[in-house]
Amino acid sequence: MKFKLIATFLLFATCVTAFSQEKQAQKSEKGLIKISIMYPFAEGKTFNMEYYETKHMPMVAGYLGSNLVKYTIEKGLAAGMPNQALPYMAIGTFYVKSLSDYQSAIAPNRDAIRADFANYTNVSPVILVSEVVK
Amino acid sequence: MKFKLIATFLLFATCVTAFSQEKQAQKSEKGLIKISIMYPFAEGKTFNMEYYETKHMPMVAGYLGSNLVKYTIEKGLAAGMPNQALPYMAIGTFYVKSLSDYQSAIAPNRDAIRADFANYTNVSPVILVSEVVK
Repeated sequence: MKFKLIATFLLFATCVTAFSQEKQAQKSEKGLIKISIMYPFAEGKTFNMEYYETKHMPMVAGYLGSNLVKYTIEKGLAAGMPNQALPYMAIGTFYVKSLSDYQSAIAPNRDAIRADFANYTNVSPVILVSEVVK
Repeated sequence: MKFKLIATFLLFATCVTAFSQEKQAQKSEKGLIKISIMYPFAEGKTFNMEYYETKHMPMVAGYLGSNLVKYTIEKGLAAGMPNQALPYMAIGTFYVKSLSDYQSAIAPNRDAIRADFANYTNVSPVILVSEVVK
């Protein structure tokens, strides 16, 4: 009887802990630093999404260790207005806890990262460092 | 005795359901459409983040109903290189399930949205529609 009570309590406590950790993980983007690598669209410019997703981004993510919370990739579809040009073909984004740790991790690998650009694009990216407000 | 078993089972089932729904919510960004409203930085251009966060974005989000999965706000901090200008002061992003539903919801409110711009910025945004690949 007592054992069952204890078991029920433990089950409940485990559930509550797991659930609240999930909640926290979901909420945790606020305050994070985003490094967005944005590839502008222009006539004659190319972008190989498959290579970017399977090779380039995993390579860079591998340099970042536990500072990296997550990374995302998006594919540009259109501008906001029907007769405007697409602003960006693709954007890759790293969500990190510390900008200085990101910079220290990237610095020794900058040449390798740049050398890989030619494998998937012929355009120079625009890079934005921002902070998640909400 | 039987009651306790049933109660324990129900508690467990509730936990598992809640937990798996959380997992699903977290995973669900892939395939979503992002509408990113990006405010370029330039000399003399201003942006009131407090108004944007507390008034403008909640107003637009209110038009989108259940098509809106989430929205985010980020504040531009720096360019990728030390001697480059900040690309954007701020970016607001709506994550939606359907682009056409987004367009139908915004169309009748476009004038109200544009009229509100002057309350927080003097710059015209660049808008990117993209698809979350990862």
